[in-house]
Amino acid sequence: DGKKLKITSADGKYSMELFGRIQIDASIADQDDLQNGHDIGAGVELRRTRFGLKGKLGGDFKYKIEAGFDAPSDTVDLEEAYISYVGWKPAALTVGKFKMPYSLEEQTSSRFISFLERGNNNVFAPGKNLGGGVSFGGDNYGVNVAYMFAGDLVDGSDNGSNEDNGIVARATVAPMLDKKGGSLLHLGLSGYYLSDQDGTARFRQRPGIHNADRLVDTGTIANVDDTWSINPEVAFVAGPFSAQAEYSWTQVGRTAGNSDIDLHGGYVYLSYFLTGESRASAYKAGSGKFDRLKTEGAWEILARVSYLDLEDNGITNADRGEQTDYTLGLNHYFNPNVRAIVNYVYADVDHPTGATQDEEAHSLGARLAVDF
Amino acid sequence: DGKKLKITSADGKYSMELFGRIQIDASIADQDDLQNGHDIGAGVELRRTRFGLKGKLGGDFKYKIEAGFDAPSDTVDLEEAYISYVGWKPAALTVGKFKMPYSLEEQTSSRFISFLERGNNNVFAPGKNLGGGVSFGGDNYGVNVAYMFAGDLVDGSDNGSNEDNGIVARATVAPMLDKKGGSLLHLGLSGYYLSDQDGTARFRQRPGIHNADRLVDTGTIANVDDTWSINPEVAFVAGPFSAQAEYSWTQVGRTAGNSDIDLHGGYVYLSYFLTGESRASAYKAGSGKFDRLKTEGAWEILARVSYLDLEDNGITNADRGEQTDYTLGLNHYFNPNVRAIVNYVYADVDHPTGATQDEEAHSLGARLAVDF
Amino acid sequence: DGKKLKITSADGKYSMELFGRIQIDASIADQDDLQNGHDIGAGVELRRTRFGLKGKLGGDFKYKIEAGFDAPSDTVDLEEAYISYVGWKPAALTVGKFKMPYSLEEQTSSRFISFLERGNNNVFAPGKNLGGGVSFGGDNYGVNVAYMFAGDLVDGSDNGSNEDNGIVARATVAPMLDKKGGSLLHLGLSGYYLSDQDGTARFRQRPGIHNADRLVDTGTIANVDDTWSINPEVAFVAGPFSAQAEYSWTQVGRTAGNSDIDLHGGYVYLSYFLTGESRASAYKAGSGKFDRLKTEGAWEILARVSYLDLEDNGITNADRGEQTDYTLGLNHYFNPNVRAIVNYVYADVDHPTGATQDEEAHSLGARLAVDF
Repeated sequence: DGKKLKITSADGKYSMELFGRIQIDASIADQDDLQNGHDIGAGVELRRTRFGLKGKLGGDFKYKIEAGFDAPSDTVDLEEAYISYVGWKPAALTVGKFKMPYSLEEQTSSRFISFLERGNNNVFAPGKNLGGGVSFGGDNYGVNVAYMFAGDLVDGSDNGSNEDNGIVARATVAPMLDKKGGSLLHLGLSGYYLSDQDGTARFRQRPGIHNADRLVDTGTIANVDDTWSINPEVAFVAGPFSAQAEYSWTQVGRTAGNSDIDLHGGYVYLSYFLTGESRASAYKAGSGKFDRLKTEGAWEILARVSYLDLEDNGITNADRGEQTDYTLGLNHYFNPNVRAIVNYVYADVDHPTGATQDEEAHSLGARLAVDF
Repeated sequence: DGKKLKITSADGKYSMELFGRIQIDASIADQDDLQNGHDIGAGVELRRTRFGLKGKLGGDFKYKIEAGFDAPSDTVDLEEAYISYVGWKPAALTVGKFKMPYSLEEQTSSRFISFLERGNNNVFAPGKNLGGGVSFGGDNYGVNVAYMFAGDLVDGSDNGSNEDNGIVARATVAPMLDKKGGSLLHLGLSGYYLSDQDGTARFRQRPGIHNADRLVDTGTIANVDDTWSINPEVAFVAGPFSAQAEYSWTQVGRTAGNSDIDLHGGYVYLSYFLTGESRASAYKAGSGKFDRLKTEGAWEILARVSYLDLEDNGITNADRGEQTDYTLGLNHYFNPNVRAIVNYVYADVDHPTGATQDEEAHSLGARLAVDF
Repeated sequence: DGKKLKITSADGKYSMELFGRIQIDASIADQDDLQNGHDIGAGVELRRTRFGLKGKLGGDFKYKIEAGFDAPSDTVDLEEAYISYVGWKPAALTVGKFKMPYSLEEQTSSRFISFLERGNNNVFAPGKNLGGGVSFGGDNYGVNVAYMFAGDLVDGSDNGSNEDNGIVARATVAPMLDKKGGSLLHLGLSGYYLSDQDGTARFRQRPGIHNADRLVDTGTIANVDDTWSINPEVAFVAGPFSAQAEYSWTQVGRTAGNSDIDLHGGYVYLSYFLTGESRASAYKAGSGKFDRLKTEGAWEILARVSYLDLEDNGITNADRGEQTDYTLGLNHYFNPNVRAIVNYVYADVDHPTGATQDEEAHSLGARLAVDF
């Protein structure tokens, strides 16, 4: 369409295109009621700067390479690098480094999520890791199963060594879907079983603003055997109105003599387009996620409650506890590729007796984001 | 024009293009009169290897991502990543990581500067940093004001944390400008006020050859409150002849009980195109800088004196002192995208009594550079 | 041809194109007979993820920039960055970081080599380094001479400082060549003389699988003066059958009072295309190497013996010794850009008395590779 550097061979079997994104964040906070040296403060950061190449080779093979400079780092990471075989439609076989199939919001690209940061349960997502998988989907369903070979389950970050191996899977269905008419009911279930190779795990979360410190933190959990998680999800769209919710239960299984640890969290949010657009139009049923909203000048208002419980018997870290974030959001879509986000977040953190004192913070964050 | 990977949508509102540069340097030196372990020696380096993506999104937004491998590092840095809003012409609003508006030579890309390295006053330039700014310009003037959020003022390098915050601004005017006729008088003034967040600053400079050690160095200055700088600039072009000069005065303000520190430096250079081209044709008035000279086979001869004073009361580092570089240059433009530079530099360094002994060095450096 | 992002100006003098590769490896091993803590084990890795830009500027100049994320690192390296002058045909002058002209298999891109890993003598290849060189070739010969400015001779890896300087050269001839008819006799000779700047050298090698530990290792050799190497090579193709062999002799010259060290190794392999293709069609005479095989659905079977002797008087490291790898290979070419490789490797390692005990291992490795 002349909008981006993409070329396709005459027979349609070969193609190559460039893509990227820039997300710039700014935030301020009232942090008088933070404890234990926690800091949110004012800050500006290049939240994500990424670019890459993808294409088709001979009709049946696809590839993608994406490199990224994400805050606070000024160095580059290999976000994704994978090869897919799509010759057995509707199935696709994928090997390499790619996003593990867990959680609706995790599957939705950071280019298209509704708030500055994903809900608190995203702490349980395995993220992008080495693996192999099969996915298939149709007009109203999607299934994605992967075997993950690498990645330590610490904030979903990948440490590059083969730490956690196991199955990650997700299935979604849209019993009601009318993209033009603006209606959608999406139901999904994902989960994983990961065998832990280095015997440790850690979960910690920021209060809805990336520039903030993590206010709840399990610390390093030792004697870990395996981790399993289950995450049901639902999204409902009726014209300009939509609602979305997820909840994750994660159990860290430990070696004999150590008690297992149960952690959980989730979110529910409401969105309304003042300008009448419908999120149903951006839904992709085959992969069960939201994609680009093709609009110019849209205004969207949002509200979210996001909860996380990172305390259980056997966790002794001072920052263990429960974090509840209340977020009000306002999004403006300048055009399909440029978006501004403003979020006000009130974070309410309860640490148990004997741990860090309870905390509260008010933050205001904004993002200007382009993708291409 | 078929020369580079660029695509523009039919309505002209969207575009995307790739760009890059490679600069390869070689140098030798007579360093018998260097002191304090200083080394220039012989060397070859990939001075700059950079590439990136830029484009337009919906007419009113522009973006740029540039990554670079610069010597001596074999790792990559994010050179620039910003988003601009150009919907309120002639103003452009920019946020992200970009070059702060200070000094004519700093604003002129390393693809188009006249010598291997910029003049000695470039040590005071804040460089590329996180910030937000507004710029506007016309047929014979340009104004650029930015608020810088990050970047420690150590050789103008960015350390990635929010160290120095403040205003950087530059205004230029061209009272005489005839690009085709080959005449230009350019006047400009830039400066900054930066509030120092970590209490330290450091300035040091190489003698006109990147492979060389820094011969003058303030060392780390402690108890720093703020830094301000002012930099007037002038360029004059009459046909194939041109002259250019800048001078910077920088004051490092310190906390009570510590004396403020005054540093300064500048350069003046003359250029003559044996083949008749005029630098006026490469001038961009709206941003007050020099751009690509569109020529094939041009030969340019140059001479420069560049001075820097990095000593004052309160600086105790052994390498404090004054450095004067005398440079003779010869440039050949194979075509608009390929250029060779040869510089002979005589560096004369005066360290005060009690510091390093005085130093002298003769260097010969060459560069082959392509950009696309 | 519409298959990749490449653009050429109307006059053919300017061009720009994108390229890249992804190689994903998996391996398992029986390592009961390994010693000294050596490990092969099971593993999955992104063997190579690279992309870059190349082009022509004004007819007579070419450039290339390639960045790569290679296992096990998740960080990026500058693989190549060079500028070539091709105005004096058939000669090309090149400066920058490029692959030093040594060994047929080293010159053949990892996209086109016949096994997962190159033969054991590849340990002596200087690899990609800063330098300047001249190359020329014709319909049945190629000559390439380079002066290398940088790169320490440790596994051919470049440590970024100017460690080993010297001459690297290679000449090849194809006395018999019929690319369409499928016949080729290729003869070549390469070698180098490198003056060692840091006084140390080290050579070590894996048993044909990248995920494996190095089983033979000279350890760091001290008191090194210089290194010279010579590497004759031969390849013969008759229709679907081909044979290829190389052998390297490398001498590490040492300072007075230390004995020189002689190391050597090589390989011979046989290949047969069950589907009838001929490797002669992929031969590039002017640079004396194999390039892309343009085929769809080809099956190739292979067998290789690869030997390396990393022991001599003066080497005391426990892992010194001889490694012989016996490899059976099966390659499938899905199309010219997508290839799968399966290798079974039996490694037989003899360490001398007093060093590590003798070792044996059986490995099975596979790769899915795309390039574009």
